[in-house]
Amino acid sequence: MRTRPLKVALLGCGVVGSEVARIMTTHADDLAARIGAPVELAGVAVRRPSKVRAGIDPSLVTTDATALVKRGDIDVVVEVIGGIEPARSLITTAFEHGASVVSANKALLAQDGAALHAAAEEHGKDLYYEAAVAGAIPLIRPLRESLAGDKINRVMGIVNGTTNFILDKMDSTGAGYQEALDEATALGYAEADPTADVEGFDAAAKAAILAGIAFHTRVRLDDVYREGMTEVTAADFRSAKEMGCTIKLLAICERSKDGASVTARVHPAMIPLSHPLASVRGAYNAVFVESDAAGQLMFYGPGAGGSPTASAVLGDLVAVCRNRLNGATGPGESAYAALTVSPMGEVVTRYHISLDVADKPGVLAQVATVFAEHGVSIDTVRQQGRPDGDGEASLVVVTHRASDASLTGTVEALRKLDTVRGVASIMRVEGE
Amino acid sequence: MRTRPLKVALLGCGVVGSEVARIMTTHADDLAARIGAPVELAGVAVRRPSKVRAGIDPSLVTTDATALVKRGDIDVVVEVIGGIEPARSLITTAFEHGASVVSANKALLAQDGAALHAAAEEHGKDLYYEAAVAGAIPLIRPLRESLAGDKINRVMGIVNGTTNFILDKMDSTGAGYQEALDEATALGYAEADPTADVEGFDAAAKAAILAGIAFHTRVRLDDVYREGMTEVTAADFRSAKEMGCTIKLLAICERSKDGASVTARVHPAMIPLSHPLASVRGAYNAVFVESDAAGQLMFYGPGAGGSPTASAVLGDLVAVCRNRLNGATGPGESAYAALTVSPMGEVVTRYHISLDVADKPGVLAQVATVFAEHGVSIDTVRQQGRPDGDGEASLVVVTHRASDASLTGTVEALRKLDTVRGVASIMRVEGE
Ligand SMILES: NC(=O)c1ccc[n+]([C@@H]2O[C@H](COP(=O)([O-])OP(=O)(O)OC[C@H]3O[C@@H](n4cnc5c(N)ncnc54)[C@H](OP(=O)(O)O)[C@@H]3O)[C@@H](O)[C@H]2O)c1
Ligand SMILES: NC(=O)c1ccc[n+]([C@@H]2O[C@H](COP(=O)([O-])OP(=O)(O)OC[C@H]3O[C@@H](n4cnc5c(N)ncnc54)[C@H](OP(=O)(O)O)[C@@H]3O)[C@@H](O)[C@H]2O)c1
Repeated sequence: MRTRPLKVALLGCGVVGSEVARIMTTHADDLAARIGAPVELAGVAVRRPSKVRAGIDPSLVTTDATALVKRGDIDVVVEVIGGIEPARSLITTAFEHGASVVSANKALLAQDGAALHAAAEEHGKDLYYEAAVAGAIPLIRPLRESLAGDKINRVMGIVNGTTNFILDKMDSTGAGYQEALDEATALGYAEADPTADVEGFDAAAKAAILAGIAFHTRVRLDDVYREGMTEVTAADFRSAKEMGCTIKLLAICERSKDGASVTARVHPAMIPLSHPLASVRGAYNAVFVESDAAGQLMFYGPGAGGSPTASAVLGDLVAVCRNRLNGATGPGESAYAALTVSPMGEVVTRYHISLDVADKPGVLAQVATVFAEHGVSIDTVRQQGRPDGDGEASLVVVTHRASDASLTGTVEALRKLDTVRGVASIMRVEGE
Repeated sequence: MRTRPLKVALLGCGVVGSEVARIMTTHADDLAARIGAPVELAGVAVRRPSKVRAGIDPSLVTTDATALVKRGDIDVVVEVIGGIEPARSLITTAFEHGASVVSANKALLAQDGAALHAAAEEHGKDLYYEAAVAGAIPLIRPLRESLAGDKINRVMGIVNGTTNFILDKMDSTGAGYQEALDEATALGYAEADPTADVEGFDAAAKAAILAGIAFHTRVRLDDVYREGMTEVTAADFRSAKEMGCTIKLLAICERSKDGASVTARVHPAMIPLSHPLASVRGAYNAVFVESDAAGQLMFYGPGAGGSPTASAVLGDLVAVCRNRLNGATGPGESAYAALTVSPMGEVVTRYHISLDVADKPGVLAQVATVFAEHGVSIDTVRQQGRPDGDGEASLVVVTHRASDASLTGTVEALRKLDTVRGVASIMRVEGE
């Protein structure tokens, strides 16, 4: 074993960074044995230098992250600051000064992954980011290495713990969205400003990263269709139950039937209770992968939290350090397939639509005609008079597979019918 | 991209090998793009040369596997013959003649992994075997790379599809073992001689491999406690249901509380229906991993079959080819921790014991005394008079956690009691 240590610069020492530092210290001997050389924490960049940080030698702490990555003797930079800047510039500077990089930054990777990979390659360095998607769950490495000899057709997952916690609460208690969100906030599962989670931004970043790796194609954040889960109601859960389903916020990356294009999207969807993703509880994450040869695989675990995320960061750190000792680099960006990334309109799936309609003869025929005119065929329809006898009824339509564009056209036409008082909800049905 | 192809020798062209050859042909362009050089099937060794093999150029077929691996121009040998010899000698010869090796051979790896790794290292070559454990499920790579910065405490899994199919049938239909086995055989899920599966030999080999990787310690096949599932009865499933459990054949690799020793074992066990492994149906496999930092992870998918296993083989092939182009090797054996491998007696778990006892006063007190004398504390006990009033009753005892040695002592003493007519079943309870 080499005795001269590899030097690690830690950028950020918050929820994730403090755990990375702790494990580097407590597991130092194991890390050294697994890497083949000791690793040394050479510096820790933070915003607030005076904050007391348990287990961190204060002499290592700096607010000048740029100077730290420019030192020239750093082997690996671990970026756990988050956000776009200064993280992006720091990573680029790290490559320029000879370091490889491990990051947990999904927002940055989703937005600028291609440029960062190019910078890594230009300088012959590694860029690893297992922690950026689904926290502790090994996913990037299985997709890009274990399945490297296979053809992935679909990646569908619960990749945001906050929203899964909220939806699981709604499902199990009958609570509404706001009530479940309040509980998630009180328990620390949701941030004070939950927008990034509940509006699907976080999941969309992960979908872009996953789709890029799965399909060997650049998928930009803008390519990902995104719909949050703030509109999901207790009534939607009741409808889902009637269909033997539950509701999850899913990130879905799919190859088209002809194989020539791919789509990536995030939205709430009904999935059958028998689907493995349906039983993913609380803040857990799980990702279901379908490929030609392997068939159906699922990866399950904690999608966030300081120590799970640190586990993923450290796995990358070990790999990057080994590569460095080997004088090699791991797999970089693989975008050779360069498939077309199609818009949401071309996504084909099933839909569950609840309409408020006038309670009089002929309405069903009218509605059915609109579906037919748009080429959307109906699987089941259920009509219910309302107990209050206000002259309105509800109509629940479940369609066969149809394109999102046809469905949108159908709904626009339905809204124009006099007899349709409102479209109460539209929910996609997945995983069947 | 390099245009000179990497040469692959395929040893064995049966269930797995024929799929490896097929995918190498149909996905040649993708493999080349992902590796950075084309891969060429340079020879295929089989036993019966005259057998017609779809898609295989007959001029590549040979019965002289040794000559093939000795050719000197082979980059990677894919060993999918199975069994100990000639596979072992062929792999060693391959290293000696400059090739790296990908194998799916759990029996060989479990028995001779250490020597094979040493041979690979001596010659600076790779030995990869993702397909040897749980077929298509990425498991070896996540354990030895993704979790390389973490401390794994337990690996518990369903790693044999045949036995899971049988147990799932028994659970869902109330069938007995023989009836369920017959169905598995008829459907091709069980081999004509199912011994390796139903007696737990196959799962034990996988447990040895998993424990070795998880704990960075050599675990020999002999170190693995093994109990098959041929004694599991319909009555056991009824008992399990009363406890809110089902029965699975589990491979369990555990680190002791003090961290200094490890155990590995294969046996049927009751697990709560709420445990993620309980809902693994049919011939699927799933492995649950618990570590310090990551927490609880699960990996799920098809554990066998030609094309799923080929997916794993090809993932390894891509990795080994990339390493070769990089002039590097991947992680080899890691056994630095060299923990003590403890015998079954030191395993601590809970037990569900059904006794046939005399239906008279004082029996419960007698039985309870025996448990207490052996330091095994009782969690619940349920006594049932039999409807036929033959003077016998059943007593079902569920214990708290106790060592296997204490439990064995308890059961021996129980058998000596006049009032205990028989020990109907003993089943461990896991996953709580
Ligand atoms: N938390 C999770 O569960 C989780 C899961 C997966 C991925 N991630 C990703 O991991 C990254 C870090 O997340 P986190 O939860 O650990 O964030 P956090 O708790 O907010 O920590 C951020 C750290 O960065 C430091 N920092 C902020 N701006 C800086 C600057 N300009 N220069 C130097 N240091 C700066 C902060 O310093 P102070 O300590 O002085 O404030 C803090 O130590 C993010 O990319 C996030 O998306 C997090
Ligand atoms: N099948 C699965 O689902 C699965 C899953 C995981 C791992 N594995 C492992 O994969 C390996 C292969 O399994 P398999 O199911 O593919 O076995 P298989 O169908 O029995 O195929 C074995 C192949 O090896 C050839 N062979 C046998 N002895 C040979 C010799 N002395 N020299 C050259 N070739 C020889 C056979 O030739 P002929 O074709 O001429 O008979 C046949 O092509 C085993 O280690 C197994 O444990 C299998």
